[in-house]
Amino acid sequence: VSAPATATAPFAARLADSVRARGSRVCLGIDPRPEGHALTHPDRLGSAAAVADAVVAYYRAVLDGCADVVACVKPQSAFFEALGLPGLEALARLLAAARALGLPTVLDAKRGDIGSTAEAYARAYLGDGDLAADALTVSPYLGFDTLEPFITAATANDRGLFVLVATSNPGAGALQDLVTSDGRRVFEHVTDALADAGRRLAPGGGYGPVGAVVGATRGARLGEVRARLPQGWLLVPGFGAQGGAAADVASAFDDSGLGAVVNSSRGLTAPPETSDLATVAREARRRALAMREALDRAITARAASG
Amino acid sequence: VSAPATATAPFAARLADSVRARGSRVCLGIDPRPEGHALTHPDRLGSAAAVADAVVAYYRAVLDGCADVVACVKPQSAFFEALGLPGLEALARLLAAARALGLPTVLDAKRGDIGSTAEAYARAYLGDGDLAADALTVSPYLGFDTLEPFITAATANDRGLFVLVATSNPGAGALQDLVTSDGRRVFEHVTDALADAGRRLAPGGGYGPVGAVVGATRGARLGEVRARLPQGWLLVPGFGAQGGAAADVASAFDDSGLGAVVNSSRGLTAPPETSDLATVAREARRRALAMREALDRAITARAASG
Repeated sequence: VSAPATATAPFAARLADSVRARGSRVCLGIDPRPEGHALTHPDRLGSAAAVADAVVAYYRAVLDGCADVVACVKPQSAFFEALGLPGLEALARLLAAARALGLPTVLDAKRGDIGSTAEAYARAYLGDGDLAADALTVSPYLGFDTLEPFITAATANDRGLFVLVATSNPGAGALQDLVTSDGRRVFEHVTDALADAGRRLAPGGGYGPVGAVVGATRGARLGEVRARLPQGWLLVPGFGAQGGAAADVASAFDDSGLGAVVNSSRGLTAPPETSDLATVAREARRRALAMREALDRAITARAASG
Repeated sequence: VSAPATATAPFAARLADSVRARGSRVCLGIDPRPEGHALTHPDRLGSAAAVADAVVAYYRAVLDGCADVVACVKPQSAFFEALGLPGLEALARLLAAARALGLPTVLDAKRGDIGSTAEAYARAYLGDGDLAADALTVSPYLGFDTLEPFITAATANDRGLFVLVATSNPGAGALQDLVTSDGRRVFEHVTDALADAGRRLAPGGGYGPVGAVVGATRGARLGEVRARLPQGWLLVPGFGAQGGAAADVASAFDDSGLGAVVNSSRGLTAPPETSDLATVAREARRRALAMREALDRAITARAASG
């Protein structure tokens, strides 16, 4: 497992370059549910180490299939952690594989803690260790001061952050949409804190290292956060399997069609019974191309109507 | 590394038993900052694997020193993750060492995600894998529906949860203390959702699997959450190095002196220059005993004054 190469440009610029070079706003989600696919099924493979190896082979095929038609890759840490130590080794190998293909990586780990503990998470995931990525998802519940160690590391190391703002689950609003005494909802407080950080880091404008997670299922929230956080890239989960459609996410993009990537995980993988890696690769490519085109059409339709 | 033994009683009962058997409400925090101690210093040890081995030896000595005078053990996952894959192997070994000493383990990982992703985290940390613990810290930002997979796993496997409510950092209030339209602050919404879960799981009363994290530095918050969440154990960080004192945390306990454990990490470790493990063990014991007595005195003083 090789350590991540030192980044040579800010994350926001590298992500924009990838979107332009690949003509794609698709984020390839890597959510290994080994029991969901014949090629990785634990009953067939036995040991956790064998399952982890099969997961690496499976997603290497997915990566090989669609590396030139997706903008970035988002491994979901939880599924690797659920496989124990061999799973974390698999995560390190897949992060390295994505890097080798020139694809920016976003580790979806939703970390968050205070002071020197947040610094430790930033060292783990925004440094040069075997689990480091180009960007990390982070939770804001502990307070905006706790985002600072992540912002400092992201700025110093040309990495990015996507802070949870409005998530894609049915109960997301229970906390995020609470209306506070100044009229703003909780997620708007978070958004405004991120916007402040963006202005501070890049007073001249343009995208900075601090972005936000906003679910494809949250309707008007997407356009609202887009407008409120002009300097932050948006990471949009919840497309496809969770119900979000291309038209729903059009408002996440800026007028140049940049500023957001839309994630799909299950939507890009082959049918569960697929028994060869060549089909896994071919299906991933076919599905990523279809999603790329659906997003393009939605952006064009919005531009025509607006 | 052995998998955790199947628990034989609910976590809340096991924690209460440990508090009574050891006469202690001290939670031993394991926050490996290898550069902070001569015995684990990276400059001396070179490789990440050697540092991880030294961390295991160091904290095994701490555990051996104070296993009979602390109620439970709380490894901070961030510091292990910062050491990469060897660090996670070290975490698995220290969790096993604590279990071998009969000490309940609380993994401080502040995880949180939606639906089947939350289930994956619950499988990783509340199941029978190499990183599983007796209890896990969890973040509520994504909504109370996202706590359900953790609650289900904790209930089924006799494990516990400590949900972030009011943390110990200076900026904790920026989100947690926002006043909402019904007059409750955000952390009170979280507390009330946890209290609902407690009543649902144990309608007859008594402590259940769903507890809360409330910082020692948050003053009246501790007593407030104690009153609002009568069926939840409280995990109280921020004692010692972060400024919380014994008198500040007395209100976290119920009238029987149960219902809370107070964490100290740096406060229980030997001076940085200590060069032998016997001293590390002896110092940990001495400091844990002093903290145990300080908490006892504060509880006695509160009972006398109230």
